[in-house]
Amino acid sequence: SFNLAADCNAVLKALQPIFQEQGMTETVHNWEDHGYLATYIKKNGSFANLRIHPHGLVLVDLQSYNDHMKGREEVDQLLNKVEERMKELFHGNIKRVKRLPAILRGGVIDRYWPTADGRLVEYDIDEVVYDEDSPFQNIKILHSKQFGNILILSGDVNLAESDLAYTQAIMGSGKEDYTGKEVLILGGGDGGILYEIVKLKPKMVTMVASNIDQMVIDGCKKYMRKTCGDVLDNLKGECYQVLIEDCIPVLKRYAKEGRMFDYVINDLTAVPISTSPEEDSTWEFLRLILDLSMKVLKQDGKYFTQGNCINLTDALTLYEEQLSRLYCPVEFSKETVCVPSYMELWVFYTIWKKQTDI
Amino acid sequence: SFNLAADCNAVLKALQPIFQEQGMTETVHNWEDHGYLATYIKKNGSFANLRIHPHGLVLVDLQSYNDHMKGREEVDQLLNKVEERMKELFHGNIKRVKRLPAILRGGVIDRYWPTADGRLVEYDIDEVVYDEDSPFQNIKILHSKQFGNILILSGDVNLAESDLAYTQAIMGSGKEDYTGKEVLILGGGDGGILYEIVKLKPKMVTMVASNIDQMVIDGCKKYMRKTCGDVLDNLKGECYQVLIEDCIPVLKRYAKEGRMFDYVINDLTAVPISTSPEEDSTWEFLRLILDLSMKVLKQDGKYFTQGNCINLTDALTLYEEQLSRLYCPVEFSKETVCVPSYMELWVFYTIWKKQTDI
Repeated sequence: SFNLAADCNAVLKALQPIFQEQGMTETVHNWEDHGYLATYIKKNGSFANLRIHPHGLVLVDLQSYNDHMKGREEVDQLLNKVEERMKELFHGNIKRVKRLPAILRGGVIDRYWPTADGRLVEYDIDEVVYDEDSPFQNIKILHSKQFGNILILSGDVNLAESDLAYTQAIMGSGKEDYTGKEVLILGGGDGGILYEIVKLKPKMVTMVASNIDQMVIDGCKKYMRKTCGDVLDNLKGECYQVLIEDCIPVLKRYAKEGRMFDYVINDLTAVPISTSPEEDSTWEFLRLILDLSMKVLKQDGKYFTQGNCINLTDALTLYEEQLSRLYCPVEFSKETVCVPSYMELWVFYTIWKKQTDI
Repeated sequence: SFNLAADCNAVLKALQPIFQEQGMTETVHNWEDHGYLATYIKKNGSFANLRIHPHGLVLVDLQSYNDHMKGREEVDQLLNKVEERMKELFHGNIKRVKRLPAILRGGVIDRYWPTADGRLVEYDIDEVVYDEDSPFQNIKILHSKQFGNILILSGDVNLAESDLAYTQAIMGSGKEDYTGKEVLILGGGDGGILYEIVKLKPKMVTMVASNIDQMVIDGCKKYMRKTCGDVLDNLKGECYQVLIEDCIPVLKRYAKEGRMFDYVINDLTAVPISTSPEEDSTWEFLRLILDLSMKVLKQDGKYFTQGNCINLTDALTLYEEQLSRLYCPVEFSKETVCVPSYMELWVFYTIWKKQTDI
């Protein structure tokens, strides 16, 4: 750390020649009390910012169009020189040196899909497989070298072909016996849950996907076959049916008819991040679904759903509070699971009707 | 996309007022054939770059010191205005709009630890728990909200308290019976493998950690107790011993004495990323360790080790080639595992002596 304006000036003087040698044109702004910003402009359209803060932070940002491998070597050489010159100037007495990987913007492939808790993460995307706007959302399927195809809905990473862990978690982590059981899936347009349950010889699986999901189904049945197999090729199979309908009227109809399920799996959306449950209609919608689901759930049945990223504690707490506001008393447990493509730990809920002693 | 210099100028003219309203001082560079760079400087030391490319890419970078919540709201408002103005100008005909989370640099806490395959990822680090330089490397233990404490050696994420999956994978993924077995661990300074194997009632576990690992052991036994339990508190236990010695002389001694093990677990380092095995001494060192390990491995014994990130296919292929160059014929299998804190899939190897029919 250096505390004098004189040090700022010494850094500028020491680093200037490095950029000037590159044939870059310099513009310097001197804040007096906030240090310097030097901008270096090259003829080919690239430029550098050198920001020198009086408390001892020196930031170098390089920006160029079309970063070829040659470009990267040049960048490394330039940064090596900056580092050397700084070490000379401060006699090696530098607390920290850090270089970050280049951020690639504006290309056909977008590699940056922030986590639910708002962190910047870069994916190893190498191909845009599907990119369509439905009236409800943008639907992308991008290919990742390590995760396979990834379904991204309106910018949120939904599921990758590597993410069997997600499907297993929302099915009860291998602890349930689905043989001969009646199962209701709400949402689940990627077909992952349906595909895995059908393998387990259930009596009947009913998946209710709204027309919001129609284009998701279309994309997934073509490009996420490691996830959904052939289960979305037909809307009806030996032990399953897919209804393209809003789930609310379907749930109301089943409740009226007295149709009951051993398992209800809600794969509609993650827990809302909004923390104003009184104002936000998504929380009301969420309670409505929960109430209706409990009405069609057998007394000893189980309800599975995803929560959200483990770091969104406020949202998860609010969700748990909603569970005490249902028409019938329920109990719940939760589990934290590592879903490969999420780059953050994810919480899943199991909810069941409180058993009363009679 | 816009193809005319006139469009570049129209964008500049449309966005200029947004920055000028903020009381920012403008400097414009016009490349003629590469578009514009406008730099806007604020009195408080923050600044913005507006880079307008003639083929239709417009980049806005904002940089400020001490980004408080208020700062973020201001940033959002400014970017909202830029987005609105652009949509007006092009009558909504804009292909893509993207905002990335802010990158935080120069603070006490560094949240960016790139993956082995060079991707930029931000961790949810909220505390520096341990940060020391040994003569061999920098040793950091940083606290992540979701992963617990993370051991970072010279900038590489090594293991977090959430990463039992790593330890299980390098122990054979739960398919081995360690009861009454002789086990040799090479490296493993974080104590994770030792702690997990000792639970399984082995006959004897010998862990050979060089003095390179001494400070790792010191840090981990204090701050990674979820990983190592109390196993590093003493160098000797009922069924284990920790030798602080270079593993090469120890292996040579054991080979000479004819001491044999059921399992050898090499937790020294990941597969080298260098792709010039003839020149690079790390590959030679790697083969030496492998050869010596095979010498102390029982005929039906197993050797476990980590590979590297699944995307580093060249390095993994080279590693597999080395396996055919050992003194005895070996066979191997590999498994890909999701280790929570790594943010990339990791390859693990099982190697065994080829069984010959006599």
